[in-house]
Amino acid sequence: MSATEAFPLNSWYAAAWSHEIGRELSARTVCGKNVVLYRRTDGEVAALEDACWHRLLPLSLGHLKGDDVMCGYHGLVFNSAGRCTYMPAQKTINPSACVRAYPLAERHRLVWLWPGDPALADPAKIPDFHWNDGTEWVGEGGTFYQLKCDYRLVIDNLMDLTHETYVHAGSIGDETITAVPFEVTHTRDTATMTRWMIDIDPPPYWARQLGRPGRVDRWQIVTFQTPSVIVGDVGVALTGTGAPQGDRSQGVNGAFLAAITPATDTTCHYFWNFVRNYRKDDAELTRELQLAHVNAGAGVYDQDQRVLEAQQAAIDNNPRSPFYDLNIDAGALWARRLIDQMLAAERAGAVANVAAE
Amino acid sequence: MSATEAFPLNSWYAAAWSHEIGRELSARTVCGKNVVLYRRTDGEVAALEDACWHRLLPLSLGHLKGDDVMCGYHGLVFNSAGRCTYMPAQKTINPSACVRAYPLAERHRLVWLWPGDPALADPAKIPDFHWNDGTEWVGEGGTFYQLKCDYRLVIDNLMDLTHETYVHAGSIGDETITAVPFEVTHTRDTATMTRWMIDIDPPPYWARQLGRPGRVDRWQIVTFQTPSVIVGDVGVALTGTGAPQGDRSQGVNGAFLAAITPATDTTCHYFWNFVRNYRKDDAELTRELQLAHVNAGAGVYDQDQRVLEAQQAAIDNNPRSPFYDLNIDAGALWARRLIDQMLAAERAGAVANVAAE
Amino acid sequence: MSATEAFPLNSWYAAAWSHEIGRELSARTVCGKNVVLYRRTDGEVAALEDACWHRLLPLSLGHLKGDDVMCGYHGLVFNSAGRCTYMPAQKTINPSACVRAYPLAERHRLVWLWPGDPALADPAKIPDFHWNDGTEWVGEGGTFYQLKCDYRLVIDNLMDLTHETYVHAGSIGDETITAVPFEVTHTRDTATMTRWMIDIDPPPYWARQLGRPGRVDRWQIVTFQTPSVIVGDVGVALTGTGAPQGDRSQGVNGAFLAAITPATDTTCHYFWNFVRNYRKDDAELTRELQLAHVNAGAGVYDQDQRVLEAQQAAIDNNPRSPFYDLNIDAGALWARRLIDQMLAAERAGAVANVAAE
Repeated sequence: MSATEAFPLNSWYAAAWSHEIGRELSARTVCGKNVVLYRRTDGEVAALEDACWHRLLPLSLGHLKGDDVMCGYHGLVFNSAGRCTYMPAQKTINPSACVRAYPLAERHRLVWLWPGDPALADPAKIPDFHWNDGTEWVGEGGTFYQLKCDYRLVIDNLMDLTHETYVHAGSIGDETITAVPFEVTHTRDTATMTRWMIDIDPPPYWARQLGRPGRVDRWQIVTFQTPSVIVGDVGVALTGTGAPQGDRSQGVNGAFLAAITPATDTTCHYFWNFVRNYRKDDAELTRELQLAHVNAGAGVYDQDQRVLEAQQAAIDNNPRSPFYDLNIDAGALWARRLIDQMLAAERAGAVANVAAE
Repeated sequence: MSATEAFPLNSWYAAAWSHEIGRELSARTVCGKNVVLYRRTDGEVAALEDACWHRLLPLSLGHLKGDDVMCGYHGLVFNSAGRCTYMPAQKTINPSACVRAYPLAERHRLVWLWPGDPALADPAKIPDFHWNDGTEWVGEGGTFYQLKCDYRLVIDNLMDLTHETYVHAGSIGDETITAVPFEVTHTRDTATMTRWMIDIDPPPYWARQLGRPGRVDRWQIVTFQTPSVIVGDVGVALTGTGAPQGDRSQGVNGAFLAAITPATDTTCHYFWNFVRNYRKDDAELTRELQLAHVNAGAGVYDQDQRVLEAQQAAIDNNPRSPFYDLNIDAGALWARRLIDQMLAAERAGAVANVAAE
Repeated sequence: MSATEAFPLNSWYAAAWSHEIGRELSARTVCGKNVVLYRRTDGEVAALEDACWHRLLPLSLGHLKGDDVMCGYHGLVFNSAGRCTYMPAQKTINPSACVRAYPLAERHRLVWLWPGDPALADPAKIPDFHWNDGTEWVGEGGTFYQLKCDYRLVIDNLMDLTHETYVHAGSIGDETITAVPFEVTHTRDTATMTRWMIDIDPPPYWARQLGRPGRVDRWQIVTFQTPSVIVGDVGVALTGTGAPQGDRSQGVNGAFLAAITPATDTTCHYFWNFVRNYRKDDAELTRELQLAHVNAGAGVYDQDQRVLEAQQAAIDNNPRSPFYDLNIDAGALWARRLIDQMLAAERAGAVANVAAE
């Protein structure tokens, strides 16, 4: 599987949390590109190819000099557009001396990077991730940097929540999820899996969140946006109070957020958050929910990590190439189909560009 | 060197000690196949391909559900024949949904697995390893799992005991072994190296076992059974009491036992034991003999491990392909020749099967 | 990049410090060859191929038997010329049984090894490294064994001292180095970079060495000898006292010494020393200068190590094959050109030898 087949390049990918990028040099690998990220004095973020034009030393081993980056080996300086502005011991700067600069945008508390053709980097194409803004919804997430699996395995995981029954038994998973049917819809660039579990006993996690006795209607409405963002609208409300018809006032509503960024063909960065729109000022609850997801191996996403990395290792070792699919995979299959369409379009565009030259 | 060239598949290989397989899932790699082993409620052992039909997650990360294995990701269940008996969220089970089940047999305190064509898995072909039964002979061995060498290097090692002089100087090795000639005989599926050292001073180890002063006759009769089991009949008896003619009553007799199972082309599992037919109730002696062989790096097999793994590393790094042989290699060479004949027959059979289709 | 392209084989390379080789077996990898080094009873050093003729076990795992090496597996013995002198259990020794013996020479407190054609191993070709003798100049260096970079990256590093400004700011590096021009000259087998900084404020390190106030003339005269030895004549003298004209009496003079030995294509051994011809009896100063260079990560060579290994990792990951060059690279480029000429001559010689047969 080559890099060009595994992920579209002409897309925005989360590269860092905004708060992580300051007046230090931060290295990341995004879609196979090594980049160095930093914040300029005017507050804007910048991203350069993380290899000096001269001798390839990672620029992230150098240091900031104002808004520019100075290489830590021979002192070449590059501005945030990637142009070399200083060479040691010579007055004339080779006009071709530059490193690649990557389009960046900050939105929804994340820094998004466009690894493909800069001319196509339209900020309007940044995925809708407003649940992460910290306003209407609150929560504190984190990142699995260098998660050892193909980013699409994370998508598979989140688009099919029947796995909760088996991977997360005892917290958010129970047999009901598997027993109840779901439906999948899609648009040109989204796929949505919807499951309503009517009149059920809430699983332990949601019973605690609801804080009231009684049977509930539980929903899972998971939307994939190409190529790798997922928002899962989840919650429970007391049965008979109208949640399926749109009245969630007698319930609690959360959303799991995932921006999954390919690092290489078999590693990715998984930016996650779990947000809610109730008890928004309860910092202790925020912390509790964070630890429920990631907590030194004991959180539900820690459980997923073990499964995802074991699955990737099995794929690497197994010559049996195609997966076999079940009904439960319908959501994931649509997500993958949309990714494949992007990849095909990107290849066709590349061909068209070559033909036009 | 491809897997098909390195080891015959249509053979029984030790996969575990019987006592290791219970109501837990145990993962092993045997001849390049990842398998999960467990014991059913009726006491029978079972072995399945260690990769779920659906998404390849190792089944060994799941758990037992009665006599079946449930995958830890999406809950698919497979019975001990490998057939899927449950799929989440769907009533119809794809009739082709199954994982491979491997023929198993328990004998001589070991679990033997047949990685090749199940139709050929005849229990009568299990190697004769009755010395390991714990009845006529006693001893407690162990396993070097994932020993980092080609299984044939262990065979080379055990079929040529002159290495004792150099690797195990001071315990079982002395110059006499090297000085005395040996003979090698063979059948269609065995090779035997026989050495008698007549009227010698016993080396320290055997002097202790004999517990009587005096010169001895020492014997080493090492028999290889294809493809990878070795039994070494060893001992000493007072000189002149008729041991070479068959009367071992004035001596002590032990046997080193080895069942060597290829894991990959360059790793193997080495099931070993050292048994004796004297002082059989002496538990302290049993423990002492076990520690003489493997003891946190200080036992004689620990010494062999260092040599074998260094030898494999040297082979990996050295483009000089053929070994040079000495007279002492005659036993090992016959063992390898018999293995090569099995491999040739297996390839010819594969070709014949194709032709017959 | 294959081994034959990366480094000439018909050259002397430092393999060890003399004091490191005694009556123990020492393993080294030099130009892709695994060798075992030891000192004979007559005080001469010897080097053999580190793989037994019989079964490839590293001879360095065996032990010395007088002036010979006994293999730790089956006891074969090889004399210091590489000829097998003992085989277990057989009287006739295969006349072809030998391992390769490498020409060695001890000079300048180092053991030099010739990995190529022994017939060409002329001791007159050992590089001039007399600064390391411990007589006229004093200093205690060390070795970066298995430095994780192509040996030529170390040459690049030392032939262009502008890097001091950026890598070693605050000790030996300052902006003056970069500002002042230099010149490069060369012969058939040397390249020399000369830089004089006239009437400058000495950087902190040299101010301390000089021990007198005042402005100085500073020199850096770095000479490369093919294929991988560098001597850097460096120092400062009070301005106006005639140093540029040859009178260094009012200054302090040191020399950095480097013998860089390829281990593999991407690793090397870097034998270094920093010597001086002033305050030669001051053991505390000797120790201080040693720690200034290598000191648990805090010395100037430790800083270089980080840069060199990061550069090699970047090269390994970066498909952009050619380096871009600056004016400052003139010295390194000449050194590499001389190496390339040696490589071309070696290849031509190999072709001529084949033709002559």
